[in-house]
Amino acid sequence: VARDGESGLLDRIGARLGHGPAGEVWAGDDAAAFPSPGAQLLFTTDTMVEGVDFDLDYCAGYDIGWKALHITVSDIAAMGGHPTHAVSSLSLPAHTEVAFVDDFMEGLSRGAASVGVHLVGGDLSRADTISVNLALVGATEGSAPVLRSGARSGHALCVTGHLGGSRGGLHVLKRGLRGRDRDVDSRLTAASERLARRHLRPTARVRAGRALARLGASAMIDISDGLVIDLNRLMSASGTGCQVEPADVPVEPDLEVLAGASLKDGFLDPLDAALTGGEDFELLFSIDQSLVDEMTSSLGETGTHVTLLGTVTEGASMIGERSLDSWEEPGWDHLRGG
Amino acid sequence: VARDGESGLLDRIGARLGHGPAGEVWAGDDAAAFPSPGAQLLFTTDTMVEGVDFDLDYCAGYDIGWKALHITVSDIAAMGGHPTHAVSSLSLPAHTEVAFVDDFMEGLSRGAASVGVHLVGGDLSRADTISVNLALVGATEGSAPVLRSGARSGHALCVTGHLGGSRGGLHVLKRGLRGRDRDVDSRLTAASERLARRHLRPTARVRAGRALARLGASAMIDISDGLVIDLNRLMSASGTGCQVEPADVPVEPDLEVLAGASLKDGFLDPLDAALTGGEDFELLFSIDQSLVDEMTSSLGETGTHVTLLGTVTEGASMIGERSLDSWEEPGWDHLRGG
Repeated sequence: VARDGESGLLDRIGARLGHGPAGEVWAGDDAAAFPSPGAQLLFTTDTMVEGVDFDLDYCAGYDIGWKALHITVSDIAAMGGHPTHAVSSLSLPAHTEVAFVDDFMEGLSRGAASVGVHLVGGDLSRADTISVNLALVGATEGSAPVLRSGARSGHALCVTGHLGGSRGGLHVLKRGLRGRDRDVDSRLTAASERLARRHLRPTARVRAGRALARLGASAMIDISDGLVIDLNRLMSASGTGCQVEPADVPVEPDLEVLAGASLKDGFLDPLDAALTGGEDFELLFSIDQSLVDEMTSSLGETGTHVTLLGTVTEGASMIGERSLDSWEEPGWDHLRGG
Repeated sequence: VARDGESGLLDRIGARLGHGPAGEVWAGDDAAAFPSPGAQLLFTTDTMVEGVDFDLDYCAGYDIGWKALHITVSDIAAMGGHPTHAVSSLSLPAHTEVAFVDDFMEGLSRGAASVGVHLVGGDLSRADTISVNLALVGATEGSAPVLRSGARSGHALCVTGHLGGSRGGLHVLKRGLRGRDRDVDSRLTAASERLARRHLRPTARVRAGRALARLGASAMIDISDGLVIDLNRLMSASGTGCQVEPADVPVEPDLEVLAGASLKDGFLDPLDAALTGGEDFELLFSIDQSLVDEMTSSLGETGTHVTLLGTVTEGASMIGERSLDSWEEPGWDHLRGG
């Protein structure tokens, strides 16, 4: 990108952002300006760093743009709100291909469009490695946001979708198993491809999050760092414990296919991936027992799978007979991990 | 910081962010939540990267936190609005000292307090080099924001403060001239110190920006990339040109002291620094001639120096007899520059 310089590249990016409707300012001025999307705002930010959060060996620019958008939107979804406006900051080395930036912007734009978010500005910097930051504004549905702190003893503990898929996808991608010739086992090929996409192209649960706010979820968090860590966060914030049975954890079915193939390239335990894998961006929430049936059928109507994981208690936070605190290094720890 | 890990460090940072008033959510949940600060929102982001935007040889964590906050606030000031809520993202290597993070948070918090901004959240990542991203929400004063596009032929062209000080400070810092024993020239010592502070601790012109919106400035931009680049941006956005006399450019007086000392460590031309230096974060604006007297006395009452730089025209954008387009590599270009 060095040949185009910053202004040339900003022009390319600006052309993709488009112009807002009359009375709004998107890219091209000092800041974006637009009518407030609601009385109660939501505001969050997330960063993805090359070599830590993604690897260019198996992530295209499109994947990075899409994922940066959706992981940040997921924070808004976990509050029961809807995201409306985003600004992005891209840092990259001068030797980066312009095609990468175009591909990134395409993924970012499509990711934003998929959840109704307007990309209203951004910033470009030079750096030794690629990193991307997304900041998002959104609003609640008139009601208060669903916090992490509202779980009460006796509430049901539930989760959307299946867990461990993103971790499985990382396994597939790191070992180059994606797209490898598998004529002997087309089921494995298809499972590997789906897992890889779970890792590269997560989808924030915006509709489910809004529905859960309306349906009266008492506490909610998105699973970004793994069930063990995020369940612990939810219970700590609420000042409660929980009892979850390992058999009730909704393990991503494709992980069983992968494990069953007993590849010489390393075995990934499906339950372990589901418990500690992270980056599934499913919603983990508590809700009064009396509301569980209505919630399950309401979410089911929109095609969202929900699993009853267990119960909020006044005791310690347990999965089976194991305390959540007993996992030594569960999930991602961005400063320690590799 | 590796010993504390992400959660330990987030706890340290969270303790510094504090809790919002009742009904608001700051750090500690998936996103910040707060009442919208106005009907018309402003939203912007900025990034600072180690080795590109700052150098740890002469920037302390405090400086980086303060500056990241103020350069982002400056975008809101240049729209004539006031900033209200910020989220920060800090990326750093695992070997970073915890003391650096504490110092950074101190500078960030004090910078935020100095302009009435609430730090309501943040994100922490591991990376090979340090970088910091700030995203800011603010609001206009009920009126529309002051855009870059409103300058019209005949309007006066003005700028707050003096220019080139930040560039002079960088010169002082890079050459290790700050704090060097100068008993022979205490005037130079004092000037060097002030210049260094101009570079390390800029102050966004929030009050002046709000006043200029009320007083009817027709177009406005903050000088982040140097007068030549930012004047060109203002004129291009407005579809106008301008005539500015070099003698009218308010050169930072301390630059003359530095230049007069004829140091063997390299000469910095004061006018060149004022024209192309960048990072002064002064406000460059156009305003109807009939409003200039009232504007000058109003800003003067609050202690803000204003200079009449020239006039908006229908012709080319000129400083003296030189076209703004004739500067080859003016100011900063983050992707090309070093």
